[in-house]
Amino acid sequence: MIVVKVGGGAGVDVDAVCQDLAQLHQQGQPVVLVHGGNALTNQVATALGCSPRFITSPSGYTSRLTDRRTLEIFEMVYCGQINKGIVERLQKLGVDAVGLSGMDGGLWRGQRKKTIWAVEDGKKRVIRDTFTGRVEEVNTALLHTLLDDGYLPVLTPPAVSLEGEAINVDGDRAAAATAMALGASHLLILSDTPGVLRDFPDEGSLIPVIDADELEQISNKCAQGRMRIKLLAAGEALAGGVAQVVISSTSNAQPIRAALAGRGTVIQLERAHANEIIH
Amino acid sequence: MIVVKVGGGAGVDVDAVCQDLAQLHQQGQPVVLVHGGNALTNQVATALGCSPRFITSPSGYTSRLTDRRTLEIFEMVYCGQINKGIVERLQKLGVDAVGLSGMDGGLWRGQRKKTIWAVEDGKKRVIRDTFTGRVEEVNTALLHTLLDDGYLPVLTPPAVSLEGEAINVDGDRAAAATAMALGASHLLILSDTPGVLRDFPDEGSLIPVIDADELEQISNKCAQGRMRIKLLAAGEALAGGVAQVVISSTSNAQPIRAALAGRGTVIQLERAHANEIIH
Repeated sequence: MIVVKVGGGAGVDVDAVCQDLAQLHQQGQPVVLVHGGNALTNQVATALGCSPRFITSPSGYTSRLTDRRTLEIFEMVYCGQINKGIVERLQKLGVDAVGLSGMDGGLWRGQRKKTIWAVEDGKKRVIRDTFTGRVEEVNTALLHTLLDDGYLPVLTPPAVSLEGEAINVDGDRAAAATAMALGASHLLILSDTPGVLRDFPDEGSLIPVIDADELEQISNKCAQGRMRIKLLAAGEALAGGVAQVVISSTSNAQPIRAALAGRGTVIQLERAHANEIIH
Repeated sequence: MIVVKVGGGAGVDVDAVCQDLAQLHQQGQPVVLVHGGNALTNQVATALGCSPRFITSPSGYTSRLTDRRTLEIFEMVYCGQINKGIVERLQKLGVDAVGLSGMDGGLWRGQRKKTIWAVEDGKKRVIRDTFTGRVEEVNTALLHTLLDDGYLPVLTPPAVSLEGEAINVDGDRAAAATAMALGASHLLILSDTPGVLRDFPDEGSLIPVIDADELEQISNKCAQGRMRIKLLAAGEALAGGVAQVVISSTSNAQPIRAALAGRGTVIQLERAHANEIIH
């Protein structure tokens, strides 16, 4: 089982991911796709007069400030245009894709954080009435039913709170939670960057392999913005039993197979063990 | 089995429908919900600078003119904000709803009409490059799997063409196709009008019962705009084996049970037979 996360950055090649996915699916490889949608959400929110706002947590992670109106726009873009756009691409390629949000069938469940801490101008402050959280439980029964019946699940935030509310969750970490719950061998996190760079944005400084015990150090030294969350998700996936996480780019030819072959940054528990899987 | 269609007009009480639905679901009644979203789509399209356009077919039916950009906005509103809004309402009520578009799992399949005829200023003209069609095939296996596992399916246009493209389909007719395919006993078409009115908009002129053989005549005489399509959908459902179609309002208390009890306009094959079902 493979879980693929495809990011929502402006430079992400979703078509290439779908084409590669279609071939893997036709070969009988069980795959679950998780997608993002940040760039388009910012664009639509701005067009609708609801400028996107981001906050940085005291531990240095940046995320979207999600009030109720933002959540609605988020759902329009993630669950509407992007999810159905991917389902349509896959249907055109002959893949019977089923697009679901984390709310559908209680697929991704977690506690709502109504109050969060943010750091602004060096000062900590409380932000109230947010609709955010973290995936704590995955409805694997529904995913297995769909996979067993030959469908390809295409998943997107939001998740659902224990009280049934929509909550914004980080897509990379939701993909990690899904990979763990399904007992996936691989989590591939694909976006518009080639992998983890020692000296961002110098692509020559790509780190090809990171061992789990180096993760924190590299995250603190090298990773910024979205990459910090990807490394957090990678660490969670490894801790949850996923053998390998690969952070890679959609601009590689056959981007899923390139990532499976170790193109990008491979993150693993033990280098020796992982080499056996890759080669 | 009951199929409920809830319209997307500005005056429709979706909360009341969800509450009634939750009670029926908890009593073990298998229900599939289909929803619309016209009013909000018009609003969002206008806000995004893409004014909605409608066309009238030579046979007098009005529908949205769906080019590619309109389709994207349509998906944002129907599959995003509205579908997930209903799923959230139901999740809050303890119902494990699963929201799907007609594209997901090839749930609603039909031929794309790339070229359609419209009447403007009394003249017929061809409109090209539209993304519209009609549901010709329903993936009942997927619906039965979900229903058997205790989920409540919440369905929305678009459907998917034979080539895998998203196509806009009429929600009332899609609900009729779903009711037929599932062998439903009842199709309830709920919106912000009390039923079919002999003298629109006089609510005192409500027609309580229409026999199948009166449908065409009443449609030509009394029905305008959206109501004509509802009556067309009703006729299709009856022809496909659905025992009763009820056109009713969401503003009745317990609107689903009110419709099942015959509140609104009941459309049926034979009056005597239908009375047995109602009473």
